[in-house]
Amino acid sequence: MSRPVIISCAITGSRTRKSDHPGIPISPSEQIESIHAAYEAGASMVHLHARDDDGRLCNSPERLAPVIEGVRALCPEVIIQISTMGHHADPKVRGAALALKPDMASLIPGSVNYFDTILDNSPAMIEGLAGLMEQYGVKPEFAVFDLAMLYNAKGLVHSGLAREPLHMQLLFGIPGALPALRHLLDTMVAELHDLCPEATWTATGVGRHQETVMDWALYRGGHLRTGLGNTVRLSPNMLAEDNADLVRRAAGHCVSVGAFVASPAQARDILGLPAVPPPPSVRVKPKIG
Amino acid sequence: MSRPVIISCAITGSRTRKSDHPGIPISPSEQIESIHAAYEAGASMVHLHARDDDGRLCNSPERLAPVIEGVRALCPEVIIQISTMGHHADPKVRGAALALKPDMASLIPGSVNYFDTILDNSPAMIEGLAGLMEQYGVKPEFAVFDLAMLYNAKGLVHSGLAREPLHMQLLFGIPGALPALRHLLDTMVAELHDLCPEATWTATGVGRHQETVMDWALYRGGHLRTGLGNTVRLSPNMLAEDNADLVRRAAGHCVSVGAFVASPAQARDILGLPAVPPPPSVRVKPKIG
Repeated sequence: MSRPVIISCAITGSRTRKSDHPGIPISPSEQIESIHAAYEAGASMVHLHARDDDGRLCNSPERLAPVIEGVRALCPEVIIQISTMGHHADPKVRGAALALKPDMASLIPGSVNYFDTILDNSPAMIEGLAGLMEQYGVKPEFAVFDLAMLYNAKGLVHSGLAREPLHMQLLFGIPGALPALRHLLDTMVAELHDLCPEATWTATGVGRHQETVMDWALYRGGHLRTGLGNTVRLSPNMLAEDNADLVRRAAGHCVSVGAFVASPAQARDILGLPAVPPPPSVRVKPKIG
Repeated sequence: MSRPVIISCAITGSRTRKSDHPGIPISPSEQIESIHAAYEAGASMVHLHARDDDGRLCNSPERLAPVIEGVRALCPEVIIQISTMGHHADPKVRGAALALKPDMASLIPGSVNYFDTILDNSPAMIEGLAGLMEQYGVKPEFAVFDLAMLYNAKGLVHSGLAREPLHMQLLFGIPGALPALRHLLDTMVAELHDLCPEATWTATGVGRHQETVMDWALYRGGHLRTGLGNTVRLSPNMLAEDNADLVRRAAGHCVSVGAFVASPAQARDILGLPAVPPPPSVRVKPKIG
């Protein structure tokens, strides 16, 4: 069971508002600060949704650029994953921030109901976003809300728009999508192993399902995601203080099953992402002559 | 294995055009004629999409009313199921023809990719259509394209918008939705049995998957759907002559596994639909005095 577990932190999510949790980071400076704290608490990856000044989901590169720049200055090792969730009909708009070359980006390989709305990702949208990710060297994290999406993701490999090994984010507990039931995680993981034997995966239970799904994932070889974008609570009656608080909780789960928290360098290795060179101060001086 | 199997015939479907098959019934008179022939060939149910004069999918009650009237005059026993697939954002428009009180109507309990487009059914749309079906006494056939949809359908029972036993249509082989793989049918049927032990179900493979999925369904206790709306071919190189031709083929599959083709009366009994009184000419005269 001793293995490195990647903890990803969805610092903001698509729906959580200040009225749900006053500490949800919305502005770029709030997001940079929250990512830094989550990183220090053990997150090797951050999952990042841009919000506009009114707190609404947006895919604006202008909004994401200062965050990416700030995070790379403060903690260059952390894996930056931007979300491409949104409702723009044009993949070039939805995926405009891919030109900023984050390490990864989420890609939803299908359409599904999501709370009171629809995550609409037509085949043309999926192919358009996957093509942009290929173009900018951004590794996708397939955000999988139902069974057929595994097959749609694999289909992108067949059409040359994605490369194995794939990385999957299996989501549970969202009304309209798969409920948080252990046998459904088993079904999804078994399908994934058959379809993409080398794939890596994370499983996330949204809201009150957070900790349950975390433990199921840990016992099945998965990685973890937490963060105020997934749940604002540590337990039914206790708000999490902030993103770092949730990351520490996830780290505790890892330790409790004998796993350990992956460093960003280990996470990059697991996901096949390029290593980040250490900062100049710790670089070994090249010998001269 | 000797059991009655309901053969439903999707006479027109949402996408097939005259250029795909010259015999696809589009006008109301073509549809009535095709339903009558399919019924005579063994179909106890018809699945009906309205098309406008240009052959495009529509949900118009004006277009469906003469078909329902004509079918009830020619073959009153046959189970008339209308489709509520469409892209109108208002369930009252999408479901306007439910006021015609067909026996059944399809209801897609979720959103999913479908060929090059999206079947968009928000929770509000699903609840709106289910409410109209309750109001008009129309039994839903849940058209299930992915795993979470089974749970969404069951959710309607919990919220008082559908009644058990449910009837499910499990669809396979549509790009963007579940592929036609036998173990996926097993997964779906096992889930359905756990979730709704009394449910009845049909499985349909679209296009070239038609006959394969038919045989899987027959061996697992399911019912069948065929028709030019699902496939225009009897085999890879042979166009079906018409809907009746496909129904005869499905009937042959039933016989080959020792099952038999359900009469409309048997199909109504299996699905819990009201029996249709025999026409006056065959009614037993009431005794007087």
